[in-house]
Amino acid sequence: MTMKPAYKDLQKVVNRLGFGTQCHKAIETMLEASGGLLSECERQPLVSKVPGKEYFSFGGKSGLRSRPINSGLYSISNQSSFETFLDILSGNRHSYTADEITGAVYTAAISCCAAIDVISKADRKTQGTLFEWLCATLVQATLNVIPTRSLDVLNLDLKGKLPTDFIFDLGIEKPKFHLPVKTSTRERIIQVWAHQRVLDGVYGTGRFLAMPFILTETKLDLKTLTVTEICLPWQWRLYQMHIANLWNVCYLDVPSDYLKLNSVFPPVNVVTVGDILTAGGAIDILLQAHEL
Amino acid sequence: MTMKPAYKDLQKVVNRLGFGTQCHKAIETMLEASGGLLSECERQPLVSKVPGKEYFSFGGKSGLRSRPINSGLYSISNQSSFETFLDILSGNRHSYTADEITGAVYTAAISCCAAIDVISKADRKTQGTLFEWLCATLVQATLNVIPTRSLDVLNLDLKGKLPTDFIFDLGIEKPKFHLPVKTSTRERIIQVWAHQRVLDGVYGTGRFLAMPFILTETKLDLKTLTVTEICLPWQWRLYQMHIANLWNVCYLDVPSDYLKLNSVFPPVNVVTVGDILTAGGAIDILLQAHEL
Repeated sequence: MTMKPAYKDLQKVVNRLGFGTQCHKAIETMLEASGGLLSECERQPLVSKVPGKEYFSFGGKSGLRSRPINSGLYSISNQSSFETFLDILSGNRHSYTADEITGAVYTAAISCCAAIDVISKADRKTQGTLFEWLCATLVQATLNVIPTRSLDVLNLDLKGKLPTDFIFDLGIEKPKFHLPVKTSTRERIIQVWAHQRVLDGVYGTGRFLAMPFILTETKLDLKTLTVTEICLPWQWRLYQMHIANLWNVCYLDVPSDYLKLNSVFPPVNVVTVGDILTAGGAIDILLQAHEL
Repeated sequence: MTMKPAYKDLQKVVNRLGFGTQCHKAIETMLEASGGLLSECERQPLVSKVPGKEYFSFGGKSGLRSRPINSGLYSISNQSSFETFLDILSGNRHSYTADEITGAVYTAAISCCAAIDVISKADRKTQGTLFEWLCATLVQATLNVIPTRSLDVLNLDLKGKLPTDFIFDLGIEKPKFHLPVKTSTRERIIQVWAHQRVLDGVYGTGRFLAMPFILTETKLDLKTLTVTEICLPWQWRLYQMHIANLWNVCYLDVPSDYLKLNSVFPPVNVVTVGDILTAGGAIDILLQAHEL
């Protein structure tokens, strides 16, 4: 199957049945379509201004170019990354190291986004939606709970529905996760802190644990083929101190400027998706503490 | 002069000399260029789904279509709106009623944006920048103070510059205005509340008065030529209660769904640019209270 029908099929399953095991097969088809398409594209090395990271880009037949891809994280050889990703979805995340998980999730997500990049001139909305579906499916497989996208507000004379990012509610007196999903954030990240602030205000501080899932912060200059990372660590510290507290900011391609925020006081916890999901990682510690 | 050189000239003046009287002449040239260009465009009536408002759109020669224009606010006949706008810039805002000010500022701003719309397929960044310049010039002419776009943070071991929207600081123990400028906001409006929250946190609650300037919340469906307004009044109430307090949200084409927020408790103050600037309006009351 090619990309567009694979995308449409996945969309149908997601809209009808959500992010459970029913959509794993459609995700597998989507990954195969992405891998097939990209294998026919030329790899263009990029000039990396990001210390310690190398990037390349796929060039499509119509002259369209994909977003930058981190060579150290991307590994498509013999399809093992896709297999690992699907195995993690099927419940075997404890079989892999943090680095293996990060590589597999990154490869799956960036492949889907890059495959759309090289066939579509349109805005980046499709890629963002696809990334949301992959992350929601991954987190549903991990927490074994179906996400919602709104919450009831019942507070004196205020009654209504608050639209939210993905909410994974583990039950009465159990953790509730607030999961914004973004392919990149730049200055828009302040929205994540602001939404968390509203949740803290409406439901009580600490009631929801914010765990944004972010693909990367790379920026490609198409003229010079140069990759940079756009990071605002100084603003993040002010947001964490003055707006709300994010539980763990989870990256697939984590910027080192944000990793440094783990070691300033007060810290912002910045982790890779592997750190979060691996055996004994942040999710396991939390689930064990709540006997889940 | 045509649009592009007029824009470049204004850009040069703004970059070199800011938003003072030196840029009024370049704004006048820009308005003339916009008016001239639009007078050659065809007016296409639009289907308005917004109660009480009618909209039309300009069609350019290359087939590009402008954003929706509110027929009741737009008045270009005999150029009097442009003259009124320039007269307000030159310090004569007290000669006009609130409605006259709103009409003049709306006509000037939407003309510049629509003129760029019909000649440029690119993103909406140029129009947003131009609208920022017009608003900054208008507010500088009103408050007689030069805006800055960053603030010093000096707080224990935290030292640095916080990038901000326009800040108009009237001096020691006098009001300081925080002025985000947006052509439309939708769900991105939460950023304005979040930035205000950071200012409240770093400098003290109430130290800065947030007065966002917003052009409109219209959305044009290009297939059906239908205009709607995208409003989130329920979220605005939660943001005002749980994130921060905005002083006055100032619209050029104010949505009635937001005007209603003036009469719920606790209110969000939503006003027109004329309400703010006219004799005895919110700005005058504040300036008189502080003997400015």
